[in-house]
This record gives sequence, C-alpha cells and structure tokens, in this order.
Amino acid sequence: MNLASDNVTGASEEIIEAVARAARGSAAAYGGDEVTARLDKLFADLFETDVTVFPLATGTAANSLALAAMTPPYGAIYCHEAAHIANDECNAPEFYTGGAKLVPLRGANSKLDAGALNAAIAGATPHGEHNAQPAALSLSQATELGGSYSLEEIAALTGIARRHGIGVHMDGARIANSVVHLGCSFADVTWRAGVDALSFGATKNGALGAEALVFFGGDAAARIPFLRKRGGHLLSKMRFISAQLEAYLTDDLWRRNAVHANAMAQELAAGLGAIPGARLLHPVEANELFIELPAAVLAGIRGAGHIMPPWGDGEGNAVRLVTAFDTNAAELETFIAAAIALAR
Amino acid sequence: MNLASDNVTGASEEIIEAVARAARGSAAAYGGDEVTARLDKLFADLFETDVTVFPLATGTAANSLALAAMTPPYGAIYCHEAAHIANDECNAPEFYTGGAKLVPLRGANSKLDAGALNAAIAGATPHGEHNAQPAALSLSQATELGGSYSLEEIAALTGIARRHGIGVHMDGARIANSVVHLGCSFADVTWRAGVDALSFGATKNGALGAEALVFFGGDAAARIPFLRKRGGHLLSKMRFISAQLEAYLTDDLWRRNAVHANAMAQELAAGLGAIPGARLLHPVEANELFIELPAAVLAGIRGAGHIMPPWGDGEGNAVRLVTAFDTNAAELETFIAAAIALAR
Amino acid sequence: MNLASDNVTGASEEIIEAVARAARGSAAAYGGDEVTARLDKLFADLFETDVTVFPLATGTAANSLALAAMTPPYGAIYCHEAAHIANDECNAPEFYTGGAKLVPLRGANSKLDAGALNAAIAGATPHGEHNAQPAALSLSQATELGGSYSLEEIAALTGIARRHGIGVHMDGARIANSVVHLGCSFADVTWRAGVDALSFGATKNGALGAEALVFFGGDAAARIPFLRKRGGHLLSKMRFISAQLEAYLTDDLWRRNAVHANAMAQELAAGLGAIPGARLLHPVEANELFIELPAAVLAGIRGAGHIMPPWGDGEGNAVRLVTAFDTNAAELETFIAAAIALAR
Amino acid sequence: MNLASDNVTGASEEIIEAVARAARGSAAAYGGDEVTARLDKLFADLFETDVTVFPLATGTAANSLALAAMTPPYGAIYCHEAAHIANDECNAPEFYTGGAKLVPLRGANSKLDAGALNAAIAGATPHGEHNAQPAALSLSQATELGGSYSLEEIAALTGIARRHGIGVHMDGARIANSVVHLGCSFADVTWRAGVDALSFGATKNGALGAEALVFFGGDAAARIPFLRKRGGHLLSKMRFISAQLEAYLTDDLWRRNAVHANAMAQELAAGLGAIPGARLLHPVEANELFIELPAAVLAGIRGAGHIMPPWGDGEGNAVRLVTAFDTNAAELETFIAAAIALAR
Repeated sequence: MNLASDNVTGASEEIIEAVARAARGSAAAYGGDEVTARLDKLFADLFETDVTVFPLATGTAANSLALAAMTPPYGAIYCHEAAHIANDECNAPEFYTGGAKLVPLRGANSKLDAGALNAAIAGATPHGEHNAQPAALSLSQATELGGSYSLEEIAALTGIARRHGIGVHMDGARIANSVVHLGCSFADVTWRAGVDALSFGATKNGALGAEALVFFGGDAAARIPFLRKRGGHLLSKMRFISAQLEAYLTDDLWRRNAVHANAMAQELAAGLGAIPGARLLHPVEANELFIELPAAVLAGIRGAGHIMPPWGDGEGNAVRLVTAFDTNAAELETFIAAAIALAR
Repeated sequence: MNLASDNVTGASEEIIEAVARAARGSAAAYGGDEVTARLDKLFADLFETDVTVFPLATGTAANSLALAAMTPPYGAIYCHEAAHIANDECNAPEFYTGGAKLVPLRGANSKLDAGALNAAIAGATPHGEHNAQPAALSLSQATELGGSYSLEEIAALTGIARRHGIGVHMDGARIANSVVHLGCSFADVTWRAGVDALSFGATKNGALGAEALVFFGGDAAARIPFLRKRGGHLLSKMRFISAQLEAYLTDDLWRRNAVHANAMAQELAAGLGAIPGARLLHPVEANELFIELPAAVLAGIRGAGHIMPPWGDGEGNAVRLVTAFDTNAAELETFIAAAIALAR
Repeated sequence: MNLASDNVTGASEEIIEAVARAARGSAAAYGGDEVTARLDKLFADLFETDVTVFPLATGTAANSLALAAMTPPYGAIYCHEAAHIANDECNAPEFYTGGAKLVPLRGANSKLDAGALNAAIAGATPHGEHNAQPAALSLSQATELGGSYSLEEIAALTGIARRHGIGVHMDGARIANSVVHLGCSFADVTWRAGVDALSFGATKNGALGAEALVFFGGDAAARIPFLRKRGGHLLSKMRFISAQLEAYLTDDLWRRNAVHANAMAQELAAGLGAIPGARLLHPVEANELFIELPAAVLAGIRGAGHIMPPWGDGEGNAVRLVTAFDTNAAELETFIAAAIALAR
Repeated sequence: MNLASDNVTGASEEIIEAVARAARGSAAAYGGDEVTARLDKLFADLFETDVTVFPLATGTAANSLALAAMTPPYGAIYCHEAAHIANDECNAPEFYTGGAKLVPLRGANSKLDAGALNAAIAGATPHGEHNAQPAALSLSQATELGGSYSLEEIAALTGIARRHGIGVHMDGARIANSVVHLGCSFADVTWRAGVDALSFGATKNGALGAEALVFFGGDAAARIPFLRKRGGHLLSKMRFISAQLEAYLTDDLWRRNAVHANAMAQELAAGLGAIPGARLLHPVEANELFIELPAAVLAGIRGAGHIMPPWGDGEGNAVRLVTAFDTNAAELETFIAAAIALAR
C-alpha cells in the first residue's frame, strides 16, 4: 500500500466524469462559464451564508493568495511552527505578500497555543514602524499532525485575532476530514468560529486537482482577482476546476470520501497501536496517524513493498501514515494483520 | 459559433481519456510519478535534443517562471508592445521577476523589429546602475496578431540578444499553429533559431489545461523547481497535467489539432475576406484572423447568436476570430455562407 | 566649470551650519527629535495647508515610497517616457510597489500629453483582471528636459486622474526651480492643482542630501512609516536630514538658491544660443538647458577642462547644461565669452 | 543623561569638519568623486585585504543589501531570534531578498548556538523544493545583548555555513566596540573568521549617518550597485557619506571613540552592578549593559530626568543602558553616585 500521503491518490469517479462532461462544447473562458457560475450557490449552501469563491489548482496558491489579500508587505502572519505555509511552501506566502514575515509559534500537537499567540502579538505592537505589524493569523484544520481543533479552540484563537484587528485564515487542505471528525458543519468550523478566509481543499479528498479559496465577507476578496491573475492562477479553462468542485459538493461526495478516509485511519490506529512497542505520537483526529513502530515491524512492512516514508529526522522509527478516500479496506485489513504478524 | 478564442474550447477526447487512465491507482506526488518521468524522452524526441521540462497549469505561469529564471529584479525584458506578457497578465512577469521592467517595443503585425530592439538595448547599456539592465528578449510565436515569425526573423532577433548576452524566451501559447504554418520542426523554431526557453502551450490546442516550460540547456532551469513551488505552481497530482501532455505528443495529436485549426482559419479568411467592404488587418499565419467587416454583416452575425467580440477600441467594425482544433467544418461553412448572404 | 548636473554641487553654508548645530548634544532617534518636530509647521506654512512630511536621504526613495503608497502591485503608473522614475532609477518604483508597471507615454518637451494619458487609461480599464489596473499618475516638475508645466497643464492632467480615481504624484527634484520660474506658490503647483504627494527636492538646490516626501491629505501617508523603514530609509539620526530641510526653508534659502540657478541658466541660454549654429532644443524653464553647439565650440570648451557630458546617443553635438545655486556668475560670464570666441 | 541608545548621539567634531570640507567645490555625483575613490585603499588597509566598499546612509540598508546579494527569494537566512534583522527592520530583509525567510534560532546572550544552526540547516536540506533553501547565516557583532562573539565562536559558526555552501553576513552596527573589546583586528573578526560581507557601522560610533557595506571577495558584490540603486540608496552626493567614513578611519577615530564608549560601559556596570539588588543580565562586552535595578533606584533616576527606557516587556525593572563616544565621564560619575545614593 502507498500510505505516504493522500496526494498519491487518483480521483473519485464522479469527478472524472464531471470533467469529461464539462469538456463538451465551448464555454466562456476565465471563469465566465456556467459551471463556475453555479459554484456560488453551491458553496453558499454548504457554508450557510453568502461567500465569494475562487477556484484554484493548488493549495499553496489558495493559502498564499488568502494571506496576500489580508497582509501588507510589512505585516506579520502568526502560525504554528509546524504549519505547511511555514515549512512546505518554499516561501510562497512571503512571495505573494511581498515579503511579509511568518512568525512561527509553538503549541502541542501542531495546534497554536493561545498564550503564545497573545504574547507574540503583544510583543510586536509597541515598537511602531520598527517591526512587522500584526496582520493575520493562520490555522491549519486538520493540523499538520493529524489533529482537529475543537470549535472552542478555534474561537479562542480567532477571538485574540479579532481583538487585535487582524484577519484569520484557515488552511483547510484536509478540512473535510476535520468536519467529519468533529461532527459539525462547515459553517461551524469557519465563519461561525471567526474565520475570514478558507483554503478549501478537495485535491487530497478525491479531486484531480481542485481547491477553492472562500471568503466570508470583508473586503479582502476584492483584491483576489488581480492577485490571482498576477500569480498565474487564473485558469483559462476554469470550468475544469469548477466541474471538480461541483461534483465534490454534489450528493455529499466530500463527506463520503472523508468518512471513509477517517474510518481507515481509526482502523489503522487501532490495529498498529496494539502492537507491543508501538506508540501513537499524536491523537488521530482526521486521516493521518503518526506512530513509532518496532524496527523489525517497519523493516518487514517496507520489505513487502509498502510505502511508508520516515517521519521527523529519519533516524527513529516514526512514520506518518495517511489514509484517503480510496484506501482499500480489504487491503488495509491484510496490511494490519501482516504488521501484527511481524511483531510476533 | 463561439469564435471568441481558442480557450473557449473543450478538450480532445484522447486527452480526457489519458487523464481518466492516469487516475487509476496511486502514484508519487509532485511529479515523482511515471507519467511525468516519461515526458523527458517525449519532449527530447519532439525537440531533437535534451531538454528540461516543467509541466504547468497555465501559460502565464510558464511565461513568468521562464522570465524570472533569466532576469534579475533590476533587469529589462524586451518584448513587443502588443505582447501578452505586457498587456494581459496583470503584472505577472513583474511579480515573478521581483520587479523587472518590460520594455515595450514597436513593430508591424506584432512582430518585434530588429532595429527597435537594437536601439533599446544600446540605449540602456551605457548608464550603469541607473537604469534597468538588459536581461531577456521575449517573442510570441504565433504573435498576438496571428502572425508567425519566419525562422530567419527569429534568428535575427535572437542574434541581437546573443550579442548582448541576454536570454531569449518564446511565448508559445500557439506554437503548434506556427510550426504547422511554417512547415518546420519544433527544433527549427526554437533552439536552432536561438531560443533558450519556451512556454509550450497545449491548452488552446486541445488540452484541458496543460502547458510545459521547456529549457534547451543553460543553467536557468535549475532555479525553476524553487520558483515554481514558491509560485504555487507545483501540482501535487502532477500526473494529471503530465498525462495531458503525453497524450498531446502521442500520435501527433498536436499536429492534427493545429492543422485543423489553421485550415479553418484560412477558410474563414478566404470566405469573409471576399465580402465587399471586408478588410483583413493582418496576415493569417496561424489560427487567428483580424478583420473589419461591414457593420450590417457584423450586426447580422451577432444577431444570429454567434460570438465575436470586438477588437481594438471597440468602436470600429474590427473583430478577432479564432479557430481551434474543434471548430466544426460544416458549421463554419454555414457561418461563412450566412455572412456572405448578409453582405448582399 | 562643471555643468554636468546640479548634483555635482556642494551645499549652502546655511545648511552645513545647521547640521553642525544639530550635532550638539543628544536627541531622540528615528525622527523623535525637536528639529524634525518643527518641520510639520514649516512645511504647512510653505504649502499653506496641513501636510504630512517624511524626511529622506534620496529622491529615488521619495518617488518610490510615494508610488508604493498609492499603487497596488497589480497597478499601472502613468508617466512620461522620459521620466526619471522610468529611466534612471533601476526599477526602484517596480521594487517598492511590489511589481507595478510603469506605462511610458509620449509628449513634447517631456511633458505628458493629456490625450495620450486619456487613451492609455481608457485602454486599460475594460479588460478586468487581465491587465494592470490604473493606479497613479506621476509628473516631473521641472520636467526631465528643463521644462515647467503651467498650472493649467497640471490641472488638466490631474483632472483626468481624478476622473479615473487614481492618485497623483509629482517628482519635484527641481520643484523650487519651477516655482520660481512660474512665479507661483508651492501650493499652486501642487495640491491646488490636484497633486496628492510630492517628492520635494532639496539636494540639487543646496542641501548635502535631503528630500522630503510630502502628502496633502488622503490615507496613503499612513503606510509610509512602515514602507520607509522596510526600505531602509528611516535614518536613526534623522535630525541631520531635518536640520537641512529646516535651514532650506528658513529665510527663503530655497528661493534665493533657485532664483540664482534659473538666472544662470537664462544667461547661459542667451549667451550660447546666440552662437551661429547653436540650437536650443527645449524651452529653458528651470535650471537646465539642452543645446546643440558647433563641434569646434564643443571641442574647444572641453579642451579647456569644462565638464559637459554629451546628451542623447552621444553621437551628435547636443549637451545638457545644468546650473545651480552655486554657479559662479563671473566664471559663467568668462565661460560664455570663451565659447563665443571659439565660434568665430 | 540620555542612555537610551548610541544613536541619540550627535557626531564627532572630526566628522562634521570632514563633511564641511567636502562641501567645497563641485565633484562627480553618485560616488564618482575623489573622497569615495580613496575609501577603497582606506578600507583595504583597515581590513588588511582587498575589499569592495559601498557607502550607505543606514544600517538596515547595509544589512538588507548584503543579504539580498547572497540569498535567492526562495532562500533561508539563519539568525538569532533576537537579531536586529529579524525584529527591528520591519521586514526589510524580506523586502530586499524578494521574500526570503529569516529563520530565528535560539542561543544564550543573543549568540547563535552552533547546534541549533546545524539542526536547522540539516532539517531544511532533504525536502527539495518544498522548503526554503539554506542561503545565508547572519551574525551580529556586537550582539543585540551587548556581547561579543569570540573569534573561535565566529569560526565555529562560519565553518558550518561553509560546509553547507551558504554565505556569511555580519551585522557590525557596533563592530568597533567588539574589536576594541576583543583586542583583535577587523580582519580577525571578519574574513579571517569566515565572514563574507560586513555591515560596517559608523553612525552609532560618531558619524552623522554613515555605514559601509564591505565585501571580502566572492561575486555577490557585483550585484550591489544595481540592488543599491533600486533600493534608493545610491546617494547623488555620496561624497558626504564617504567623507564621514574617511574621517572615521583617519587617525584611529573609530578606535578612540569605541575605547571611550566601552570604558564608560564598564564603569557603569561596575558602579550600578554594586548596588544591592542590582543584577547584570548579560556580560558587558561592548558598550551596552542590561541590568535590573531596584524599583526605587529606577524611579529616582528617571525622576531626575535621565532617559533609560525599560527593557523587555516593560513590566520588570530591567533597563538597557548604552554608552557612546560622547558619554561625558564626569556626568557619568555623578550619575552613578546618585544611583548608589538612591539605593541606600
């Protein structure tokens, strides 16, 4: 099995069919098509409020554009030190903001700590033009270690942002998994909890390559069309992204996919976690688990051709395992059984 | 008919099938997959030389990344004043280069004039650090007015670039149409003629959304992986772009599509051009024509529901008409006949 | 004589003394000192209105900061094709704006033409996010060819800007010379004529190195403290810039200096202009003249050690001559007489 | 006394005189003058090797330009979390590098820890284009807490940089104070210890406003003229910066000034440190001390009109005291005696 990531997956059949269907005939370019036009209503229904939606091809584009719309080039963006925007996007947020600073903060299980956030903003404000100005807070839901912020945790952090007049962005590359895990609505976990803009991920949960940048009011969205074009992210045949998003939101495909991925993660956690010497490193609250396994088990699994890249500095026995919408349940059962057998 | 652009088209069946096929099973993310791996050889064969290829989702990304790899932020990029990079990309080249300057030059039929290029570079060099430093030349093939540079014209311009030690980029959003028009090879029109990097377009000629940035040697390509990721253009499921490119290069799909599009443009030019009072504004050397039509003809065509946006300042009777791989020959014949009838 | 430029000059005695005086004792850094505090009133008096003033060390900093405060990175800045910001600042405006585009426009005597400005803005607006958005107009007063816009000419251009909702910047590296030439007030030539921000130059007219960026209302000024610090232009011992500006505005030093420089230019124009074969290339409306001289005269002058760099492509007999606050009247008389003698 | 900083000071008499002297007569602009020409030799003598020197008006400009010459926009710059470039320059390094990332590292007394540096670089390298690429190390000498790295400490850190092929920048805003403290040469503490580029500060140690960016070989310096002009930091009358630097290096003015400042700091440390309840927070190895004083002492001193801003979060009794070239020894003695009296 390839458990390296949920972006090693293919795509849901419904999404491929939607793209094929959209390819028939001509349609206005650059998002002037009918599929794209239908997205506003679909997303408004999903989020139970009016939204502004920008279809995009990558999550890094969504994150960077959202932050660029909120942050002046002399701004500071507060995020967890493990955040994807800080570690895995090769300075894309700095690029799109024109040189804003990401301020990495600590916190258990890759969740931002309210105290650390408060202290960082407080430390920045009295120095006038000498330091970066507090401008945005960015949260990842699910987090980089497979956790899901509770609604209360989100509200506590966004409340701090609100008090200091800074915007709130949520990196939702795996937001469907968190919504399923929390048993809440998309509205609950975003604007009702104080989020201004969301990178709504679909690629990891069944799309070929489709994300949506969603704004819940405010005037930052008005700058996105220009920032998007300037970034080379205005697709001429946008309908092929929009069609993926439409299929993703139709008949709860997003939910079915995320429910499956999360269930597979729980199964994996239960199975591998019971191996003597195994140790789950973080709570499993979405579709990822981080686990230390006995060296012999690891070696055996890898020897059988399964793909499980090391986690961390690569010297220990920790791995990150990611399940997905297309994880085969039967294969997974066999895989777990084999791991247990290796541990004997 | 929708003759507004070749990006109002859907996609070739072969390309949709290739994407569907690539969606089966898991594959390494970020271009580590087997489809992407096969592109090197396919493009090397097409260009008859070793190349470095970067699959991308948009032409603006390809253009901007190419220019960013060649140009320091204090550089000058010479292009025609009608160039897409200068007029239609909302400062994307300035963004990716960190603030380089596009120097718009004149020339008939949106082809750069060698004298104007020489004069511009000569005027820039003696002033040391006071002005932007000559850094790159960017040509469009086909041009923004539907022309195709001859191989000699390209060589004359790239020769000037070479003498001043600056790089050469070609915006090949419609390069297949020019190659077909010129009856030459891709090698002839690019590296053999002195081009260093090419934005190889497939989207307008049959793909869902796939471009390739191609380098013919030099060390600029080494910076692209970082610039691409930083721009948010490294697709996690890159195989879905690569699969489109693979299908596009297989069994000469690119050629079949471009041959058809060009033939449709010639037919349209011959048909409409014969209308009394009609005037072709530029030579038809690819799949676009620019034509003035009698007001009554224009009104009649539009009244019948055909899409033909005005060209220029919108006050005259000029239109840009673009044919494509999927232009229906029978429909076009009917369309032309109707236009001729309107002129009577 | 060194007539190459007005920045080859030293400084007025009053200014040197002011710096020496300011150096006694300690004072709050970064503009918190008393000299800087006094500038607000001095400039308000000079401009007959409340202003916001930022002392700076260079004109390029003033220009670039002003434009950055007015222009989004996807914006277009309209200027004359001969403008200093377009030709002589090595992409500084592009840098500070984050990649905005300078749109070079034509016009006689390096004065912007209202028709050209109107056409450029009109051409940009209908294309939505596809092209740079009209954001600012930048005028040079005096112009790059030694002209001074009349108050009516300025108002006509700023009126166009106002109608399109874009800001107006004036590059006033030699504004004192224009004010003296026009016989108007600083208020007349700036905010009363529709200018939003002014790069107020003092360096060329007697300072060691001191410019002021002046805003006449609007909210763009609020961003300057951060943009200035980020650009490395917040001087820790700002009082040494402020002291120069204070001295410059005291007892009309600026006026005395400019009156002298302009008078010297007129004298030079009259003297050299009378030489058979000489040809003044542009009206002399400040402290610069552009003139073609017979080759023998040029050679003779240069042979005598006078500094007069060639103008233009360097192949003709044109020179730019710049007078200044410290041009020695007696030396100039001798110089002119010698030139006339050479012409015989 | 104003002990808030060494940039509240005026300037050495020698420096003011040098500026006044340089103001006589005309001279080529933009650094083409004779004073600037003499700097190369003066700095070469000081550093015992050939160097490339760029006179500048601010330390932030020197730091940012040095880093921009070394770092691609997708690069990572390693520095102490207390570094001036990270905390006090409003994203200037991010601006000048085009969006590079400052990676803040821990270490006692604001000295970078070799282990932390090693770990940070090691963690960055295996992830390819996904994260910022190690590009530069920046050290402050003296450090932000008044310490001076020993030559061995510098060499250990630059050795790590060298092994990873990244450049080394030193922020020497107070380098004269460290050189005096260590009893070494400028060569010892810079290029002999592995430093590639130095921000050589003079402003805090007696200049009106003059810094020099010094390169010890390598090809990064070749980009500085363009980056400097683009940043608005090429002063037209550069001789007035150069004259300050010339005077600063003449007759060991730099040394006399730094010796005095350091001695005053030691005196202050000895005097205040002996107060019961006082606590020196960091070793005094240059001209700054960080000390906790009894609340009553603090209140008394401030009540007497002395300027001593709080240090840190402002809630404790810690202060930063900075001595300088112009600290009056007699006044300081009185000040110390008064503090001691307050403590009784």
